[in-house]
Amino acid sequence: MSRYERIEMLAIGDELLDGRVTDTNTVCLGRALTGLGLTLAQRTTVADDIEAIVRAARAAIARKAGLVVVSGGLGPTMDDITAEAFAAVAGVDLVRDEEQVRAIEERLRSRGRAVADNQLKQADRPEGSEVISNPRGTAPGFSLVHDGCRFVALPGVPHEFEYLLRTTVIAELGADGPQIVEATLYTFGLVEGDVDALLQHVRRKHADVRFGFRAKFPEIHVSFKVEASRQTELEAAVVAARKELGAHVYADVPISMAEVVLNLLRNEGATLAVAESCTGGLVADNLTDVAGSSDVFCAGVVSYANTAKEKLLGVAAETLATVGAVSENTVMQMANGVREQAGTTYGLSTSGIAGPGGGTADKPVGTIWIGAVGPSLAVARKLSLPFDRRGNKVVTAYAVLDLLRRALLTNAT
Amino acid sequence: MSRYERIEMLAIGDELLDGRVTDTNTVCLGRALTGLGLTLAQRTTVADDIEAIVRAARAAIARKAGLVVVSGGLGPTMDDITAEAFAAVAGVDLVRDEEQVRAIEERLRSRGRAVADNQLKQADRPEGSEVISNPRGTAPGFSLVHDGCRFVALPGVPHEFEYLLRTTVIAELGADGPQIVEATLYTFGLVEGDVDALLQHVRRKHADVRFGFRAKFPEIHVSFKVEASRQTELEAAVVAARKELGAHVYADVPISMAEVVLNLLRNEGATLAVAESCTGGLVADNLTDVAGSSDVFCAGVVSYANTAKEKLLGVAAETLATVGAVSENTVMQMANGVREQAGTTYGLSTSGIAGPGGGTADKPVGTIWIGAVGPSLAVARKLSLPFDRRGNKVVTAYAVLDLLRRALLTNAT
Repeated sequence: MSRYERIEMLAIGDELLDGRVTDTNTVCLGRALTGLGLTLAQRTTVADDIEAIVRAARAAIARKAGLVVVSGGLGPTMDDITAEAFAAVAGVDLVRDEEQVRAIEERLRSRGRAVADNQLKQADRPEGSEVISNPRGTAPGFSLVHDGCRFVALPGVPHEFEYLLRTTVIAELGADGPQIVEATLYTFGLVEGDVDALLQHVRRKHADVRFGFRAKFPEIHVSFKVEASRQTELEAAVVAARKELGAHVYADVPISMAEVVLNLLRNEGATLAVAESCTGGLVADNLTDVAGSSDVFCAGVVSYANTAKEKLLGVAAETLATVGAVSENTVMQMANGVREQAGTTYGLSTSGIAGPGGGTADKPVGTIWIGAVGPSLAVARKLSLPFDRRGNKVVTAYAVLDLLRRALLTNAT
Repeated sequence: MSRYERIEMLAIGDELLDGRVTDTNTVCLGRALTGLGLTLAQRTTVADDIEAIVRAARAAIARKAGLVVVSGGLGPTMDDITAEAFAAVAGVDLVRDEEQVRAIEERLRSRGRAVADNQLKQADRPEGSEVISNPRGTAPGFSLVHDGCRFVALPGVPHEFEYLLRTTVIAELGADGPQIVEATLYTFGLVEGDVDALLQHVRRKHADVRFGFRAKFPEIHVSFKVEASRQTELEAAVVAARKELGAHVYADVPISMAEVVLNLLRNEGATLAVAESCTGGLVADNLTDVAGSSDVFCAGVVSYANTAKEKLLGVAAETLATVGAVSENTVMQMANGVREQAGTTYGLSTSGIAGPGGGTADKPVGTIWIGAVGPSLAVARKLSLPFDRRGNKVVTAYAVLDLLRRALLTNAT
């Protein structure tokens, strides 16, 4: 599938070993290779130390690696010694690339910064290597072939690494290998095991399609990949999976639940207000994270205290005294109250016990009511959640948006 | 300082190389070793593959590693082959630990789950190794000395790994080496470079204290570490640093800005309500993330639309028409309005342009007003922020809580 039998990662930097920084560049490389049907065989992480880098490079050659992606150690500081180390690996001198010197000078001047000598050091690379220009930063990378192994050294700054990786290594591997097409379904309301179980049959039937699951709490993403020549099979698999997963699929593009709901409301020219107790502002926060949400989302009320439920939302004192704040009756009054106050088409509400305190035998921690009201809508649902305080807030915020989404979909059909 | 000249990490698992999972166990180990004044020399990551594990273990021995912390591959599935691989490294058989068999059976039964054969496989370890019991999960670890190198294999599940690491390896290394005492100051309102510059003099004066910086947007944490025998010097350095950083230090224990503000309010028996426009519920979300916040935080209003500002908070239509929603006048009316509506001691407010759209020549994206009112308090501040939409929301939420915190501190003195 590729001209490289074995692909490895070599991550360089003290900060990766002393607990300061998590190595996300390897995750980026691993995901990109997986997307091409390729495998990352090993990662080695060493400190900013010439001897350690040289030894790690030689060990990769000894393991018959064909391609080693190297990250880090290309910047302007004394610690940045990757070019020097690979000159030592290949037994060559360092050369200063005049074109890169000019590029670094230009980049710094355009930002009103002085050109210090240590900045120009970034234009050094092992003699005989190819330079990799970096439009996202001052440090260029290089590609060096030695003893049958190609080392591609890229800057460690994650967004520069990712950009250069995709435009060089991954672009070349993708052109060499089969073209892959992919699709993703975004689901809410099922755990990973349930999604897996529901799709057993579909996976067996579409054995050529590679299925993948990714949990991004509280979402589960299901991905489908296939060689481009089998696009029809991908589409059939996606249709079959959608049928199994039903309304749990809330999107097939990477947008949040809040954005899906905002789009549905915008399409019908509707507006929204939310009344939150246990989610404490998180539903509004989710909605307002979406740029342009202000034409649909008008107002929210966080009625944390019972007096706020009465005063700001008009919940009856008697309701709170008899059935309590965590009840169907209360969430319906909250949703109606905020809808009236804000004069919107729809109203949403949440009230429950997020924990860790506040639970009773009748209403243990995780007992939560959510409600949604609109022109021809009045629905409430009870949740019993097992998460910690933050987890219960996050899932409840998703669930109340999902309640409205499902209602809007039913209306539309 | 330690009996090990060289310490390495060997992380095992396909999921670490195919982009599914970020290796946080190495960060955990690196941080713990740094805390002891020790260094992690290298990390190697390999797939669930016996040959690859054996080769990596032998390479660590060849590099004269004295201690290798191994993570992953100890679970019940077919992929979990760490014990088998290390039996091969040492040239010994696998033995089943009867005590661990009973522990696994008990743990599963107590959770109402069946004891499948593959679960018992977790009690297997290389002959001659020491078992490491795991009170946090079913998979025990083991410690094996071979060719002068000690391999400590721990389960890869992060919370189990961290617990067993601290109770075994780190506890032993800590007892061997000098005792370290540490302190941390939590700051808001400065960038890392500013904090560094402010502390130059203090660092020079207290050269025996190790200073560290950690950016956890929008917080900067400053840590101080020293051998226990020099505790007085640590205390002197912290006092000196506090003096330089002033009110930017909001805590010396790991709590959020919201929790600090809630504690200050609780101490004076005060209550709080917030009126949010550009933060869209995030201030309330931050406050309600703190367990027990409900005795202080009563209510929030997210007045995203101008009509909501008028109707829910009583902001004058004339103010909105003349100076606009993003103005000192508006935020003061918002803060007063929510305070009156909710009947609280203090009121906070935010209004601004979070972006990416909505900016004008007069009020570009990032122009934000925040306000705070109370019994003897009426203050507003203008911010000009350079972040993306989410970043602007996050910093504004911190800034408005910080505005109240500083006012409460001034009142108290």
